[in-house]
Amino acid sequence: MAVVVTDIARPSADVVDAFTAFGVATVHEAQGRKGLLASYLRPIYRPAHIVGTAVTCEVAPGDNWMIHVAAEQCRHGDILVVAPTSPCEDGYFGDLLAQSLRARGVLGLVIDAGVRDIAALTEMGFPVWSKAVYAQGTVKETIANVNTPVICGGALVHPGDLVVADDDGIVVVRPAELESTLEKAREREAAEALKRERLAAGELGLDIYNMRERLAARGLRYVTSLADA
Amino acid sequence: MAVVVTDIARPSADVVDAFTAFGVATVHEAQGRKGLLASYLRPIYRPAHIVGTAVTCEVAPGDNWMIHVAAEQCRHGDILVVAPTSPCEDGYFGDLLAQSLRARGVLGLVIDAGVRDIAALTEMGFPVWSKAVYAQGTVKETIANVNTPVICGGALVHPGDLVVADDDGIVVVRPAELESTLEKAREREAAEALKRERLAAGELGLDIYNMRERLAARGLRYVTSLADA
Amino acid sequence: MAVVVTDIARPSADVVDAFTAFGVATVHEAQGRKGLLASYLRPIYRPAHIVGTAVTCEVAPGDNWMIHVAAEQCRHGDILVVAPTSPCEDGYFGDLLAQSLRARGVLGLVIDAGVRDIAALTEMGFPVWSKAVYAQGTVKETIANVNTPVICGGALVHPGDLVVADDDGIVVVRPAELESTLEKAREREAAEALKRERLAAGELGLDIYNMRERLAARGLRYVTSLADA
Amino acid sequence: MAVVVTDIARPSADVVDAFTAFGVATVHEAQGRKGLLASYLRPIYRPAHIVGTAVTCEVAPGDNWMIHVAAEQCRHGDILVVAPTSPCEDGYFGDLLAQSLRARGVLGLVIDAGVRDIAALTEMGFPVWSKAVYAQGTVKETIANVNTPVICGGALVHPGDLVVADDDGIVVVRPAELESTLEKAREREAAEALKRERLAAGELGLDIYNMRERLAARGLRYVTSLADA
Amino acid sequence: MAVVVTDIARPSADVVDAFTAFGVATVHEAQGRKGLLASYLRPIYRPAHIVGTAVTCEVAPGDNWMIHVAAEQCRHGDILVVAPTSPCEDGYFGDLLAQSLRARGVLGLVIDAGVRDIAALTEMGFPVWSKAVYAQGTVKETIANVNTPVICGGALVHPGDLVVADDDGIVVVRPAELESTLEKAREREAAEALKRERLAAGELGLDIYNMRERLAARGLRYVTSLADA
Amino acid sequence: MAVVVTDIARPSADVVDAFTAFGVATVHEAQGRKGLLASYLRPIYRPAHIVGTAVTCEVAPGDNWMIHVAAEQCRHGDILVVAPTSPCEDGYFGDLLAQSLRARGVLGLVIDAGVRDIAALTEMGFPVWSKAVYAQGTVKETIANVNTPVICGGALVHPGDLVVADDDGIVVVRPAELESTLEKAREREAAEALKRERLAAGELGLDIYNMRERLAARGLRYVTSLADA
Repeated sequence: MAVVVTDIARPSADVVDAFTAFGVATVHEAQGRKGLLASYLRPIYRPAHIVGTAVTCEVAPGDNWMIHVAAEQCRHGDILVVAPTSPCEDGYFGDLLAQSLRARGVLGLVIDAGVRDIAALTEMGFPVWSKAVYAQGTVKETIANVNTPVICGGALVHPGDLVVADDDGIVVVRPAELESTLEKAREREAAEALKRERLAAGELGLDIYNMRERLAARGLRYVTSLADA
Repeated sequence: MAVVVTDIARPSADVVDAFTAFGVATVHEAQGRKGLLASYLRPIYRPAHIVGTAVTCEVAPGDNWMIHVAAEQCRHGDILVVAPTSPCEDGYFGDLLAQSLRARGVLGLVIDAGVRDIAALTEMGFPVWSKAVYAQGTVKETIANVNTPVICGGALVHPGDLVVADDDGIVVVRPAELESTLEKAREREAAEALKRERLAAGELGLDIYNMRERLAARGLRYVTSLADA
Repeated sequence: MAVVVTDIARPSADVVDAFTAFGVATVHEAQGRKGLLASYLRPIYRPAHIVGTAVTCEVAPGDNWMIHVAAEQCRHGDILVVAPTSPCEDGYFGDLLAQSLRARGVLGLVIDAGVRDIAALTEMGFPVWSKAVYAQGTVKETIANVNTPVICGGALVHPGDLVVADDDGIVVVRPAELESTLEKAREREAAEALKRERLAAGELGLDIYNMRERLAARGLRYVTSLADA
Repeated sequence: MAVVVTDIARPSADVVDAFTAFGVATVHEAQGRKGLLASYLRPIYRPAHIVGTAVTCEVAPGDNWMIHVAAEQCRHGDILVVAPTSPCEDGYFGDLLAQSLRARGVLGLVIDAGVRDIAALTEMGFPVWSKAVYAQGTVKETIANVNTPVICGGALVHPGDLVVADDDGIVVVRPAELESTLEKAREREAAEALKRERLAAGELGLDIYNMRERLAARGLRYVTSLADA
Repeated sequence: MAVVVTDIARPSADVVDAFTAFGVATVHEAQGRKGLLASYLRPIYRPAHIVGTAVTCEVAPGDNWMIHVAAEQCRHGDILVVAPTSPCEDGYFGDLLAQSLRARGVLGLVIDAGVRDIAALTEMGFPVWSKAVYAQGTVKETIANVNTPVICGGALVHPGDLVVADDDGIVVVRPAELESTLEKAREREAAEALKRERLAAGELGLDIYNMRERLAARGLRYVTSLADA
Repeated sequence: MAVVVTDIARPSADVVDAFTAFGVATVHEAQGRKGLLASYLRPIYRPAHIVGTAVTCEVAPGDNWMIHVAAEQCRHGDILVVAPTSPCEDGYFGDLLAQSLRARGVLGLVIDAGVRDIAALTEMGFPVWSKAVYAQGTVKETIANVNTPVICGGALVHPGDLVVADDDGIVVVRPAELESTLEKAREREAAEALKRERLAAGELGLDIYNMRERLAARGLRYVTSLADA
C-alpha cells in the first residue's frame, strides 16, 4: 500500500544554478511570499546554503526504513525531504546515511524530525535542516511513500520542486513558477542593491519608499514627549 | 491614534561606556534581579555584547512598517527594541534595515519576533536578539507607537532605558538606577574576582560562603550510603 | 530531611577511558536504545564530547544552594548532573561555579534547567548541557539531596553512572552494563566502519542490508509515475 | 493578486449524511491513516461532532478581512476552514461572524489560529476547532485567497473536501475517496462492534487478534519477576 | 528590600458594576486593543466572568509566601493578580488560600504560574485563570513586593487597575481610561447588537461594512475556478 | 529482548481504599513533595479521581502493540501506566481497549502520549490522563517491556506503585512508603480542615501561621504608597 515513484521531472541544471545566487528570503519574496517551511526547521550548522531538487520521503514515527529506499531514487543535485506521517523527533538520520547520500551526489537533507551524529555531519560538511537533534534510534518495520507529495514543516513539497535552504530556513518553488520566480528574484536583488547603497549612505526608508504621507494619512502623529500625546 | 515621541532622554555616554565592562548576569544581579527579558530571546550569533540606549517600537503582527519610522528616531549608540502588539514570529527585519540602522550608529536590535537574512547580518557583524529566525515577509499597513513604553520578552522597556545584551540574554536598567547599579556592578565584579581566584585554587564555596552551619541547621545530613539515610 | 551520600562507587578509569572512543548515538544503540536524556538538553557550545562519572544533585526551583554542596562531592573525572525538583529555567550555574568544579577536575555539567555566563564558560572550555540559557539569579534557601537517583531530562540517573555527552545529547550507562555496552559499542563501530566505506563507495543500504525482499513482502511497489499507483 | 473561487464541487448530501455515523478516528483509519489535522487544533466545547464540506480561506497574520469574503461563498452544510499565511494566534473570529455563518447554514469553523467570544459561541452551539482562545482583535487590510487549497493544522485541505470534526480532532477526505472511505468505515465499524462485544465480555485482544505467536517470534518472554529476566 | 503598598486607589463600585455588562473582547476593543494578558492564561472552569480591582503580588519561583501577605491587602471586590519573578508552573494556590480570599470578598485569581485543588476550587465556584494546573507544592522562604506594578501574562498590571476576566482571557484597564473605555464599550455593544441582528438575518458583512469596493481596489478577483486565476 | 513480568506485588485493598479519601496534592505533600508526574498529563474529562495499582507498559513510538500484552496482566483495581520509549503523541488508546481494560476491572489509564475516541471514553466514564488527544493510528510491530520500571511524565513509576490521579494530575507512592504517607495524609487533612475553618471565618494565614515576625526579619516593609518605598 505504499509506492516509490521512480520517474520524477527535475528542473534543468541551468535553472538550479541560476537560483544559487539567491537566498531563501529573496526567493520567498520573489514568488509572492509562499512556499516557506516552518521556522522550527533549523540548520545543524551555519553558514549553509544549498539549492537542489526535492526527492520526497515519508517515514513512520520512529522508523527510518524508507530513507534507505529513497536514497536509491536520489541523483546528483538532489535534496532529500523527509516527513514523518505523525510528529516524531527521533534521530532518523546519521553519518552512515549521509555517506550514502553524498556518494549519490545529494546536497543535503531537510527533515521534519530529528537527526543525530551532528558532529560528524558538520565535519563532513553535509548540511541538514531538522526539527531536533536527538540520538534516539529508529526501527525498520513500516513502509511508506517515496516521491509523492508530502507536508514538511507545514508546507506542501512535491518531488521535483526546487528547494532553497540557507541560514534563514527553507523555501520550495514549483517547476511551473521557476522562470517567473527567477526573474523576480533578479529584479528584487537589483533593486535591493540600490536601496542597500542608499540606506548605507544614511538615507531613510521613510524617504526612499515615500512613506511619510501615507503614515500621516493613517493618523501617525509626532510629539516631543508622551505627555503631549 | 499612534504617536512617535521624538525627544527622549538618553543616559550620558560616560555612563553607557562604564557599563560596557559588565555582562547581563552581573548587571541583573547588581540592580536586584530585575529587568531581565525572557530567555527565548536569543542572539543570532555568538559572541555578541552591546550596551546602548533603548529606542522602542511597536509593530502590528506581520507588519514591519513602524521599524522604518523608528529608524529615523535612532542615533549613534542606540539599540532598537521592537515588540509586536500580539505574538508573531514573522521576519520583520533583514539586511537592508540593518544597513539603515548601522548608518545611523545603531548598535543592534532586540526583537520579540522573527528576523531574516541572518547570514548577511552575521557577516556584517550586526547583532540581533530575536524570538525566531524566519524568512516570512511582512506588510506595511498598520501604524503603531514609537518611543512609548513596550513589553518586550515579558519585560517593560522604556525609551531611554539602558540596554545590555550579551550571550546570556538582555537586561534593561532605568535611568534613575544607573548610578546605583553601576556601583553595585563594580563591587560585585571586584568581589567575584577574588572569589574566582579562591575557587580556581580549589577552595570550596561551602567554606568561602560559610554555608556549612546553615545547611546543618536546615537538616542536611551526610551519609556514606543511601542505605544509611 | 535531605541527605548527601558521600561514598559512591565510580567506574574504573580504564573503562571510562575506553568509552571516550564512542559518541552518544553509538553508546545508546550499544546498550539497547535506552538511557538517553531528552533532546531539549543542548550543549552551550559545539563541538563538545566528555565521558565521566555522574555526581547527582537535586535543586529546588530558583535555588542553587545544593550545587555548592555537590561540588565538594566531586572528584577528578566526574560530571555533575543537576535536576530541579520542579521545572525551572533559572540560571543556576555560572563561571564562578565552573571555576570551582574545574579546580576539582570535573569535566562538565548536565543541568535540566538554565545556565548563565556562557561566554565565559565557552572561553574557558567548560562544557554544559542545559535546558535554557538565562541570566536569572537564584537564592540559597532550600536543601535537597546530593548523590541520590534523580530524573534528569526524563531519564533516571544514579550517582556513579557513566555519562557520555556530545553534540547529539547525553546518555547514561549503569555500572553493571558497562562491559557489555563497551563490547557492543566496539562491535558496532567496527561494523559501521565497514558499512561507511561501502556506502561512501556508492553501494546502497538496500543491498548492504538485504532489504529489497522484505520491502516487497510488506507491499512496497515501484511505479514510474503517481498516475500508475 | 488574490482570488476567490466561486464554483466549487460539493459532495452529495447523501454521502455527507452517510458520514455522520462515523467519528474522526474511524474515518482516518478507513482512508488509510491520512488526512488528519494536527492535534493542537482543539474544540472550544465538547461534545461536538460535525460533517460537512470545506470552504477554505487564507488570512494574513492579525487580519480577518477574508473571513467576511469567505462567508459569502458558504452554503448550507459547509464548514469554514481558515489558515493564516504565517502563524498567528489572534482572535480572528467571534460571535458576530458566527451569526453570519449560521445564517448561511454553516455547521462550524476550523481555524489554525485564535478565536474569541467562546462563551457566546458555546451558548449558541456553534462549534469551533482552533489553535488558541485569544481576545486579541484583528485588522482588515490585506487580501488573500478563498477556496484555493490551504495547509491547515499541517494538512492539505482543498475546497470541496469532506470535513469530519469531533472531540478527537479533524480529518479531511478527498471527493475521489469518499465512496471507498465510506465503505471501509462501515466495515470497520461493523468489525469493531463485534470486537467491542467480545472485549467487553473479557476476551483478550491477544486472543482475538491472534497475537501470541507473533509476539513470541519477536522475542517477547514472560518472567515472574524482573530478577529472572 | 521588598515592600507592601497598603494604600491603593480603587475604582468606584459604580464603574466596576458598569463593566460587568461587558466581556473581555469588548473591553479590549473599546480601549484600543491593548491591556490583554497572554492567551496561555486559561480559566480552570467555564463559564466564568468576573470584574474587579487588581491587587498585585510578586512571588519567587516555587515560593508562595507572598500570597499570604497579599491576602491581607485584599478587600471585597478585588481580584488577586500573581506574577512570579521568573517563570514557574508550581501549584502556588489551592483551596485553603481560596477560602481565605473568599472570606475577604475576593472575586478570583489570575496567576502566571500553576494552581492546584482545582476540583475543590470548581466546586466552591472560585474562578482562577492560570498558566498550568500542577500539584507541586511551594515553600515560604523569599519575600517579594505586594501592590507594585507587575508583568503578568506579558502585560503590565498596576494595583488598582480594573480587571475583566472571562472565558476568552483577561484584560486590564487603567483608572484614567475607565470612563472612556466604558463609553466606547457601550457604543460598541450597541453597534454590535444591531449588526448581530442583520448578520443573523442573512445580510453579509461585505455589504454591512461596504467592503466590496475596497477589496476590488486591493486587487481581489472572483473566478469560477482556479484554472481561471 | 523484551519481558513481561507476570508477578507483581500489589498494595492491600485496605490501603488502597484508605487512599481514596485523599487527592493528589495532599498525597504529594504527605510523602514529602515527590512522586508527581508532569503537569502536561491532563485528564480527558473532569471531575475524575481514581486510586489504584500501577501496571506499567512501554510502547515504541507509533506502536500500541504492548498495550494488548499489558491488558492481560491487569486485574481489578489496577491503573495502566503507559510510557513511550521516545516522545510520541499518537492516539495509542481508544474505546475498544477501554472496553477490554474495564472488563478486567481496570480503573483508568495514564499515558505519556496521545489518546483517541475521547467522546466514547467520556460517555463510558473511563478516565484517562494523557499528553495529547490525537486520532492518529498506531501499528503493531515492535515489542517492549511490561511491568518493568518506566519513566512516565518525568517520574519513575514501578509496577505495584500506588497511583492517585485526579483533576490536579497524578502522583505515585512506593509500597514501602504507603503507611507513612497515609498517616501524614490523614494528619495533613485534619490540620487543613481546622485551618480551612479559620480561614473561611476570615482569619489570616499571616496570623494562623505566625508569619509576621519572620517576614519583618527578612526585610519586608509596609508603606502606604510606592513613593514612600
